[in-house]
Amino acid sequence: MTRLPDPQDPLFERLNSSLRFDRRLWPQDIAGSKAHLGSLRKLEVIDDEGLRTLDEGLDAVAAELDAGTFGFQDSDEDIHMAIERRLTELVGPFGGALHTGRSRNDQVATDLALYLRERATVARRLIVALMGRLLALAKEHSDWRMPGYTHLQRAQPVYLGHHLLAYFWMLERDEIRFAAAAGSTMAMPLGSGALAGLNWDLDREATAAELGFARPSPNSIDAVSNRDFALDYLHAATVCAMHLSRLGSELVIWSSDEFGFCETADEFASGSSIMPQKKNPDAAELLRAKAPRVTASLTTLLGVLHALPLAYAKDLQEDKEAVFDAVDTIELSLEAGERMLGGLRFDRERLAAAAADEMVAATDIADLLVRKGMPFRQAHGVVGGLVRTAIESGRTLSELSPEEVASHSELLGDDYYAALRDGASLDSKVSAGGTASARLAQQLDAADRVLETLRSDRD
Amino acid sequence: MTRLPDPQDPLFERLNSSLRFDRRLWPQDIAGSKAHLGSLRKLEVIDDEGLRTLDEGLDAVAAELDAGTFGFQDSDEDIHMAIERRLTELVGPFGGALHTGRSRNDQVATDLALYLRERATVARRLIVALMGRLLALAKEHSDWRMPGYTHLQRAQPVYLGHHLLAYFWMLERDEIRFAAAAGSTMAMPLGSGALAGLNWDLDREATAAELGFARPSPNSIDAVSNRDFALDYLHAATVCAMHLSRLGSELVIWSSDEFGFCETADEFASGSSIMPQKKNPDAAELLRAKAPRVTASLTTLLGVLHALPLAYAKDLQEDKEAVFDAVDTIELSLEAGERMLGGLRFDRERLAAAAADEMVAATDIADLLVRKGMPFRQAHGVVGGLVRTAIESGRTLSELSPEEVASHSELLGDDYYAALRDGASLDSKVSAGGTASARLAQQLDAADRVLETLRSDRD
Amino acid sequence: MTRLPDPQDPLFERLNSSLRFDRRLWPQDIAGSKAHLGSLRKLEVIDDEGLRTLDEGLDAVAAELDAGTFGFQDSDEDIHMAIERRLTELVGPFGGALHTGRSRNDQVATDLALYLRERATVARRLIVALMGRLLALAKEHSDWRMPGYTHLQRAQPVYLGHHLLAYFWMLERDEIRFAAAAGSTMAMPLGSGALAGLNWDLDREATAAELGFARPSPNSIDAVSNRDFALDYLHAATVCAMHLSRLGSELVIWSSDEFGFCETADEFASGSSIMPQKKNPDAAELLRAKAPRVTASLTTLLGVLHALPLAYAKDLQEDKEAVFDAVDTIELSLEAGERMLGGLRFDRERLAAAAADEMVAATDIADLLVRKGMPFRQAHGVVGGLVRTAIESGRTLSELSPEEVASHSELLGDDYYAALRDGASLDSKVSAGGTASARLAQQLDAADRVLETLRSDRD
Amino acid sequence: MTRLPDPQDPLFERLNSSLRFDRRLWPQDIAGSKAHLGSLRKLEVIDDEGLRTLDEGLDAVAAELDAGTFGFQDSDEDIHMAIERRLTELVGPFGGALHTGRSRNDQVATDLALYLRERATVARRLIVALMGRLLALAKEHSDWRMPGYTHLQRAQPVYLGHHLLAYFWMLERDEIRFAAAAGSTMAMPLGSGALAGLNWDLDREATAAELGFARPSPNSIDAVSNRDFALDYLHAATVCAMHLSRLGSELVIWSSDEFGFCETADEFASGSSIMPQKKNPDAAELLRAKAPRVTASLTTLLGVLHALPLAYAKDLQEDKEAVFDAVDTIELSLEAGERMLGGLRFDRERLAAAAADEMVAATDIADLLVRKGMPFRQAHGVVGGLVRTAIESGRTLSELSPEEVASHSELLGDDYYAALRDGASLDSKVSAGGTASARLAQQLDAADRVLETLRSDRD
Repeated sequence: MTRLPDPQDPLFERLNSSLRFDRRLWPQDIAGSKAHLGSLRKLEVIDDEGLRTLDEGLDAVAAELDAGTFGFQDSDEDIHMAIERRLTELVGPFGGALHTGRSRNDQVATDLALYLRERATVARRLIVALMGRLLALAKEHSDWRMPGYTHLQRAQPVYLGHHLLAYFWMLERDEIRFAAAAGSTMAMPLGSGALAGLNWDLDREATAAELGFARPSPNSIDAVSNRDFALDYLHAATVCAMHLSRLGSELVIWSSDEFGFCETADEFASGSSIMPQKKNPDAAELLRAKAPRVTASLTTLLGVLHALPLAYAKDLQEDKEAVFDAVDTIELSLEAGERMLGGLRFDRERLAAAAADEMVAATDIADLLVRKGMPFRQAHGVVGGLVRTAIESGRTLSELSPEEVASHSELLGDDYYAALRDGASLDSKVSAGGTASARLAQQLDAADRVLETLRSDRD
Repeated sequence: MTRLPDPQDPLFERLNSSLRFDRRLWPQDIAGSKAHLGSLRKLEVIDDEGLRTLDEGLDAVAAELDAGTFGFQDSDEDIHMAIERRLTELVGPFGGALHTGRSRNDQVATDLALYLRERATVARRLIVALMGRLLALAKEHSDWRMPGYTHLQRAQPVYLGHHLLAYFWMLERDEIRFAAAAGSTMAMPLGSGALAGLNWDLDREATAAELGFARPSPNSIDAVSNRDFALDYLHAATVCAMHLSRLGSELVIWSSDEFGFCETADEFASGSSIMPQKKNPDAAELLRAKAPRVTASLTTLLGVLHALPLAYAKDLQEDKEAVFDAVDTIELSLEAGERMLGGLRFDRERLAAAAADEMVAATDIADLLVRKGMPFRQAHGVVGGLVRTAIESGRTLSELSPEEVASHSELLGDDYYAALRDGASLDSKVSAGGTASARLAQQLDAADRVLETLRSDRD
Repeated sequence: MTRLPDPQDPLFERLNSSLRFDRRLWPQDIAGSKAHLGSLRKLEVIDDEGLRTLDEGLDAVAAELDAGTFGFQDSDEDIHMAIERRLTELVGPFGGALHTGRSRNDQVATDLALYLRERATVARRLIVALMGRLLALAKEHSDWRMPGYTHLQRAQPVYLGHHLLAYFWMLERDEIRFAAAAGSTMAMPLGSGALAGLNWDLDREATAAELGFARPSPNSIDAVSNRDFALDYLHAATVCAMHLSRLGSELVIWSSDEFGFCETADEFASGSSIMPQKKNPDAAELLRAKAPRVTASLTTLLGVLHALPLAYAKDLQEDKEAVFDAVDTIELSLEAGERMLGGLRFDRERLAAAAADEMVAATDIADLLVRKGMPFRQAHGVVGGLVRTAIESGRTLSELSPEEVASHSELLGDDYYAALRDGASLDSKVSAGGTASARLAQQLDAADRVLETLRSDRD
Repeated sequence: MTRLPDPQDPLFERLNSSLRFDRRLWPQDIAGSKAHLGSLRKLEVIDDEGLRTLDEGLDAVAAELDAGTFGFQDSDEDIHMAIERRLTELVGPFGGALHTGRSRNDQVATDLALYLRERATVARRLIVALMGRLLALAKEHSDWRMPGYTHLQRAQPVYLGHHLLAYFWMLERDEIRFAAAAGSTMAMPLGSGALAGLNWDLDREATAAELGFARPSPNSIDAVSNRDFALDYLHAATVCAMHLSRLGSELVIWSSDEFGFCETADEFASGSSIMPQKKNPDAAELLRAKAPRVTASLTTLLGVLHALPLAYAKDLQEDKEAVFDAVDTIELSLEAGERMLGGLRFDRERLAAAAADEMVAATDIADLLVRKGMPFRQAHGVVGGLVRTAIESGRTLSELSPEEVASHSELLGDDYYAALRDGASLDSKVSAGGTASARLAQQLDAADRVLETLRSDRD
């Protein structure tokens, strides 16, 4: 193919060949080639018969690839050359006309952009499905009490539905991030040639439209050097995987005997090879464990691009395995996460018993004092004293006598005991976005509307 | 402040205190507190006089902070407690009313969101300035020839202006990314309390509007656990720093004696402590060197968030140093980069001499054959043979005789020599986004329009 | 200082200056300069009086730096130039003789190597102290029962002392890693000049010995380009911080109300600004949270070194902030961790109650069957069936009747119930390194011996 | 296998199964199982016939795996269960005896330790081969002059052999690092059971000796939770890959037309799909590009281990793909790098012409002044003035007249011109480790001795 007469060293072939992994880009490569044929026809590089020959040839190649009957050869350096090689076998030397006005540099950037636009769309769909699952769970458990935690210490009671919705809103942001990543793929590299543009005035606008791009890239050097769209996809995947790691982590903790808040379905758990009693929340653990690997794909590509002179360099070939691993990981995580949540069972009694801890109402006592005119910081101190008294005497807050309570502040009377009653705290959280039932109902409505919009966007 | 009686261990204070770095958030903290006062007034937690007292007290505290006369104390755990402590000193115990209906958890998330919205705006401004500098340079050098490179091998000639514009378009994408990061900060955490919402029905819509947020956050647990907006800023900064590392890397290579394409101004270069002749492109090297550090800020925060149970945990305190270092690094890099480019001098002769290498026109000979009916892949092979003949006999392509040329392909005649003439290749790159003069002129126009829009957006 | 006439641009100075952070290297820089003076004397570059003058001058500079009275100037690019500048102010132009036969390139590499050798020694000392604390805790709690976990599910009972020793052995490996990092600093860069060696045949062996290096570096180009010793320190710190993150994470989980296994001392806990009842394990959370930041220092330096041409480049200046942050972080974490553990209180009853869960003895029943001739995999299945029966009928394993038990396997009789008795399982773990009391006693002895050796090594 | 009745969800199987990648551990798994049989025999869990049956069964399984005829099944969760399943098919239910006194937790840690010890040995061998290649190249080019660079600016001339040896010493450190990584694998996890030890007092010392471990691990909980040995391997691989990235980067720069210092063999270069003249140094580019990916394997595993509670968790399964990718990458890079260097051709004339640049002798003029009594800093200033005069008047240093030279310093006479003569500078670098011929000869000798030792160590 080049001026280089010698066969490549087998070790170099192993280092250099990308066919092992880039073969998954074949549908994008075929699509790009078919659109490119239109350009060549307009330029009269090929005539109608030539167009038909090459187009049918590509269809035949695609059929082989689709059927798994395509015969890859060791000398096929990448999927692009493999397809062109096979096309030429099928239609003769005229197949070599296809690469007119094109370089692998703009071709591969185009293929990857097309691919990532599709995968971003798939990720968005999977996210919406998971959001739907979370919303359904939140509705089912909208009045189940549990302790909310800060520092993994019981802090204030919340409804389980409220807690689950926290993940709904994280995923809403993830959906936006993947949409932005899809948007980053909208400038078409094809037509930039090796780096300087082409000797042919292709109708790049038309090709872009045909392939679903918004516009041709404005600068040929940038077009073949740019992988920002892959970085944007990887950022979206990384943040999403981090969210899933927090969900997985909570499910692992909640599945412990000590918490006992939930149990995964048997279909999503593993046993132990040695301990017959074990039921391990492996799926939740793996959701948790996958995030660093997705981050690693992002940092790999950032590292490859670091200090890299323009325009195309072979280093850019290292983009693909990083991207493909992240795609596979995030898609599997989202899909498995959704199914795993579907089989999750919560334990209402354990949750309620933990939420009944009176200490989590301490803030409410302080607010009670504020309503009676005490500055908050002072009220905080008064309640801190009550808590200390209770702990040191081994009692709960409501077990303190009215006299003891009054000795901390005369402002506290029966309302003190009322505030400590189970559930009082929970429905006092009336601020917008808070856990009080009425607010939670509003939040569920808002989530419904968001989901409806996301679902209809996709139609 | 709490039920905990003992003084903290000094080692714990060193580990725990964030005042050393979070003091830079004081303007956001004051602004947030002042807006919060409005809520407390509406709720009648404070009356008009109380409002005035606290508002003026905050002004006084702000004045001290601004003037650098604020007396920080070792026991000030963070900037939020320092401000409240000082306010209470100034206005008495009533200062403690300020923290009604608020937790540090929603307060610090709000402060950081406000801060990052401002810094994203600053980054956008600096990016636009750098884009302006690049565009001016591109216009000045729109007809300077240079070799374009792939694999750092001369590939095809381009105009220097075309090459410089590649960075313009990278930065345009960076601007979009920072705008998206600013957008991520638009949901106000304030009013979420510790995690569950508040016992007070604050007018969160009004406070959000006052502080420039688009809306209150929809879920209190998510609001205090969320740092996505910081991740989005860090992603924008990381990709931008990577772009600058590629620019810095090229300037370092171009400044070498061997390339000799450009020279930094003395004001942006360093000498050597031992070698009197040295003039080193330190600024370009540092532009190159900063990217991994910004990436590290992103991975630090991702690592901290990995598997972290909801809601707030102390781990989140590790967000700030990572974010602040990235902010300082990217702002300084952008600003210094812009100034450094302003003093850069290119060497027209060295660039032109390198571009005159005939080999870079080889693609044009192949395209010539295509125009005469030869499939491209075959034409590529013919020219590969010509190149080999030239190299093996130590001649340039135009030094081959007409007979030799014809022996490779009878289709090649005088047009072969014409295509090799200096400059012919360059202006043959007529595809949209290509380097040909007319296309470059269009690109400069497009860049002008982009810049105009970006500049007017900011007004 | 150079051929460059113009003053540097203030923005460039901000980008370029390292004085802000590298001033902490002053003791190493003074030590290196004093040793270098010996070389210059031997070479007769300076005479005895010159040696005395410069040596005393350096002492005076060091005294100012030590006392904090050294007057840094904006034009001091780094600590090395600041010291030379001040020396020249004190002793006159003759101070300029100090930089004979030396470049900042070999000087800064030497300073950093000296610094990291010291810090590695400090880290080793802090690790040994923490190991001592863990061993003491393990001895105190050597017969406290607790459930051991896999997948955060109760798996098999262990002694708390056994669990705590797991961290002892992690730290033993960390100590080895820091020792290896110290070993990496043993080749002295000084005497390599800018990159090519020097015009002076310095006695590098003697200088190396004086500064505590094992030998001079063998290649001058490598010597000024090499930062492997910093990477080795950062690796040691990263793995150690990861170990501490696991310890911190367990303490956070164990401090939860649900586990209730331990409680930090008040001196190492924080309250909440809003919730008066809170006592948060902030120190444990911060131990957990610091690891990603240390990893980020490692990846920053790896990123800076990526693809960097030899020899010295300004990019290498980015090594210092990464290293210093890691040093400060790991030293504070180790020290605070040791103190925090000192105040930790475990709850014997809660631990024992959790360990009394009969399910954790399931493996023992299986092994019982094996002893009676059943292949393990089959025995595992039998016990799995017993567990299922118990769970489905809401009973414990010992609540199953002898008939029910026999229906699963006739091999099971009274020994079935004996194996389920509290504690039986624990002391049956008799393999070397297992938790059985006798084995634990051996392990405590072994740990004692390790600690003794480590402590005496340092004397 | 467990108490869990339901079949696993197919999505969970995809998430959970590790067979796809962990099958490469089969030789270690078989070896570990065979050694374990010895323990079971000693414990009389099996008799001689049982031992023979299981041992021969494992041989049969191994033969199938080796021949590629082993029939993997979808339900095989990992290689360990696949082997046990097949063994049981071959020898009947008695095959289930093999898992007595063993858990997958200690089994998989043992397999990975064995695997990494082998790969560390392979890496060491490949490093030594590459060191040998570099040393041979250094000897061939020990008197070829080239400019040494700092900041990619010509700094001082060096011999090419000296420059190449810089990589030799980097690799020597890499060899030490891999040896340390091998050392980290020397504590045998096998015999730790699930986490608490075993009900069987296995002879762990004997098994360790049989499998080449130095000792049994001292703590069963640590043993199954520990992946430090993998982190140590990954650190060694990461630093080594970084070194190769610097080598690759230099070869790319040196292969540019502008430098023209070297050319890769055709067998290690690629052409362009569009530009017939191109010969790209793809192998060097890929050496450069692989480092971030190896770093990513390290950070993946560190991220997975972050904050992970003891003991085994499913997250640890994420160790393998990271490790395997790093192993494959570093081994291929080392091997291909060695071969690529074998075909590299340097251009003596281009190197010498670049080295003849008089400016690189400026330090020597300054040292000349020092020998005549001028303090170095002052001498540096004088030469800086000479350089400025030369540059501003467009002349070389030797084109300045004796009067002009004397006007900068009367100390400079004929020796000024002598110092500027080609080559004078080079052989004046006489300090140990410097580039002067005699010192380089010593260095080549030292390298020979190092290599000899490394080669004999392996015998």
